[in-house]
Amino acid sequence: MSDLKLPARSEDFSEWYNQVVLRADLADYAPVRGCMIVKPYGWSLWENIQAALDKRFKATGHVNAAFPLLIPKSFLEREKEHVEGFSPELAVVTVGGGETLEEPLVVRPTSETVIGYSYSRWIKSYRDLPVLINQWGSVVRWELRTKLFLRTAEFWWQEGHTAHAAYDEAEAETVQMLNIYADFAIREAAIPVIQGRKSESERFAGALRSYTIEAMMGDRKALQSGTSHNLGQNFAKAFNIQYLDRNNEMQYCWTTSWGLSTRFIGAIIMAHGDDQGLILPPKLAPHQVVVVPIFKNDAEQGPVMEVVGRLKAELAGADLRVKVDDREGLTPGFKYNDWELRGVPLRIEVGPKDVAKGTVALARRDRPGKEGKSFVPQEGVAGLVSQTLADIHQSLHDRALAFREAHTHDPKDYDEFKQAVEDGWAFSWWCGEHECEAQIKDDTRATTRCIPLDQPGGSGTCVRCGKPANEKAIFAKAY
Amino acid sequence: MSDLKLPARSEDFSEWYNQVVLRADLADYAPVRGCMIVKPYGWSLWENIQAALDKRFKATGHVNAAFPLLIPKSFLEREKEHVEGFSPELAVVTVGGGETLEEPLVVRPTSETVIGYSYSRWIKSYRDLPVLINQWGSVVRWELRTKLFLRTAEFWWQEGHTAHAAYDEAEAETVQMLNIYADFAIREAAIPVIQGRKSESERFAGALRSYTIEAMMGDRKALQSGTSHNLGQNFAKAFNIQYLDRNNEMQYCWTTSWGLSTRFIGAIIMAHGDDQGLILPPKLAPHQVVVVPIFKNDAEQGPVMEVVGRLKAELAGADLRVKVDDREGLTPGFKYNDWELRGVPLRIEVGPKDVAKGTVALARRDRPGKEGKSFVPQEGVAGLVSQTLADIHQSLHDRALAFREAHTHDPKDYDEFKQAVEDGWAFSWWCGEHECEAQIKDDTRATTRCIPLDQPGGSGTCVRCGKPANEKAIFAKAY
Repeated sequence: MSDLKLPARSEDFSEWYNQVVLRADLADYAPVRGCMIVKPYGWSLWENIQAALDKRFKATGHVNAAFPLLIPKSFLEREKEHVEGFSPELAVVTVGGGETLEEPLVVRPTSETVIGYSYSRWIKSYRDLPVLINQWGSVVRWELRTKLFLRTAEFWWQEGHTAHAAYDEAEAETVQMLNIYADFAIREAAIPVIQGRKSESERFAGALRSYTIEAMMGDRKALQSGTSHNLGQNFAKAFNIQYLDRNNEMQYCWTTSWGLSTRFIGAIIMAHGDDQGLILPPKLAPHQVVVVPIFKNDAEQGPVMEVVGRLKAELAGADLRVKVDDREGLTPGFKYNDWELRGVPLRIEVGPKDVAKGTVALARRDRPGKEGKSFVPQEGVAGLVSQTLADIHQSLHDRALAFREAHTHDPKDYDEFKQAVEDGWAFSWWCGEHECEAQIKDDTRATTRCIPLDQPGGSGTCVRCGKPANEKAIFAKAY
Repeated sequence: MSDLKLPARSEDFSEWYNQVVLRADLADYAPVRGCMIVKPYGWSLWENIQAALDKRFKATGHVNAAFPLLIPKSFLEREKEHVEGFSPELAVVTVGGGETLEEPLVVRPTSETVIGYSYSRWIKSYRDLPVLINQWGSVVRWELRTKLFLRTAEFWWQEGHTAHAAYDEAEAETVQMLNIYADFAIREAAIPVIQGRKSESERFAGALRSYTIEAMMGDRKALQSGTSHNLGQNFAKAFNIQYLDRNNEMQYCWTTSWGLSTRFIGAIIMAHGDDQGLILPPKLAPHQVVVVPIFKNDAEQGPVMEVVGRLKAELAGADLRVKVDDREGLTPGFKYNDWELRGVPLRIEVGPKDVAKGTVALARRDRPGKEGKSFVPQEGVAGLVSQTLADIHQSLHDRALAFREAHTHDPKDYDEFKQAVEDGWAFSWWCGEHECEAQIKDDTRATTRCIPLDQPGGSGTCVRCGKPANEKAIFAKAY
């Protein structure tokens, strides 16, 4: 953390983002171009994301496992669309133990293929189904234009891979996981998201159907924040994942995959941050409360630190993640700025006057300055802190939702549409034709983000071509 | 799980091991030679190991982070001994995004180098020290002779990397982490271990000093189960990790690294297993208790399942990991064998007679047959189960310790030494010379496992050469 001011978020969103990531100590650049180091503060945030998701996965019957990092290159070539989608992005191991390998290996860009190979060996009969496995790890996709968390050559994620006896079950699983991502985004990260189906051109390479949660960032662009794919029987056929059904006949399985990555940290930064830096959602913040002691001399230090110690114990005892900033040689003002930059939801200040009066100052990160500051009794502070954190969560969510609604438009013609996607999102009738979607992208740089599951019903005419349309889609510029 | 009998552990330990790993569903072979898939049951065991270690790391002030998988090849070459140690084992990426890379990248075999690079950028002054970071992930070392969990090309582990202002602090950290590994092995895995120093020839490539925990397996070989290294200033000098001290002078840091891997699962299998299969230590077992319902018809099923449901709720409510085996079409006997093979510490059987009498049958995995079986009241079963699990833990530990003691010898001459290392371990005075150690290995295939920290004091004469010796070492055949 340096004393230099951040670039204003409203003036240079992109540079504001880069600076926040580095100066809040979330991540750093790795020596290999395009790769990332997730620093302890960023990783702690990811650990909280992992815990919140893992709990939901296990509650719905999923288990974790670990599949290998290195995959025979030929595996990637077995599913036609998959190979086209991933070939340009592969990191290839050609030498092992000092010898040139007979068959090159790729560092996994995603694991459908090697998991498909495994499932074909493990699954024998309908009794073995469904298989509901998730994996936490990292994958590598060779990216030239990178941005920390949003697009890096290596990123961390979870990838769920399931196999089912019937199409309906696979589809239900795909939608269930989409709903879990949405629930996580809203309840844990305070980010309102739209659940929808991807258009054919935006779908995962090898999927029958892809679903997404889309969130609006502070610059009004869209960020795909998690995806869930119904893979149909494409991978089951490519990897021969078959089972003996109740009638003793061989059938191909129906498979799904779904993932959410460290990209979500980018979503948190861009959905909630302000000119002072990060604002972390309380349920995921590494430190939910920071306590800053204020004193000028030894005589003041003793009583202040005694109160600070008592507060810390009380807050930690109430299962709150509390950090005491007792760094020496730094002014309280410097510490306030530092923790504001790093997005801690709530700050408690304790000075000699507070000791005398039995109070502390509470400062909310989501409401800068005096508006967010209150003086409260030390007595019962843990309950008040918990309540305030819940308020902050709700207020971050409501603010992001109001922002999205203010910048989501229902343009009545293509001219209005063009203005709409300059401002934010357009939610418009679309004929569903790829040609139309491609023309819109050429004209405006906006793409179909998704066809929301929540549709108004009825029908209309395509915002670009005027043909009959049965569904509305969200169009926006996107990360 | 098939009905085929396991090979007897006493007759073919190696094949017994391989079959247990596969048939207990812990792991499977990957399509790439030497790589491994950790299946859900094995991964759940690893998750419990992770949680037990991570808690200890965090309680001692460590934080987690994530460093990149891909490292410039030149990094490995900066520390002389490190490059010699790891060069033969590297997997090398030469192609990225369809193009030949200017500089090849290696898939990390361990992360001292890339973390050294990062620390040299992050650490500026004594105020930044110590840096106490751990990472969970996988690494790749090209191995030709592989064995699941014990030696695979990719394995999962944690690697801690710390930087300190002074030699003493680094040494204290190294020993602290060794002690944490020992505490974990004893208290969580019920495996007694010897803490000791590695001889120079067995030391980590690039370390000043390496420490290890060594455990005796069921075939009386030794397994290195966790290591902690004082790296001195070797990596600090190779990567220019310097800090400004309190006198405003630049100093090199002192660094450490320490790791424990999925190899530890091999230790659990080989330390506790028997002819029936795995015996998992209760604190780490994915399922601590399995409940097997017994009924012959629908009339019996209802009341039995009602009791089973109540027991499950009570056990889960007491934070016990309980699994009900309600698979259809399998006999109770088949299920008993299956869960014995998979090492579940405690089995509860509930049949119609138990329903009538208000009892259940408890069967301990560590005491086969009637000896380990008792009939107890349903009332208050959770308390009894907790107590029995604690007993099982202690009994596994004590049995392994007694076994190690029975097979650890103090030979009075080199002839007895040779017999000792045929039977198990020799704890012998050693002159400390590499020549002697090499000759012993040639003669007996036994190596110095460690120089235990716990020494008898005094001095003696080297068991091979008769020269004066100040320390005793453990010699054994090892994995």
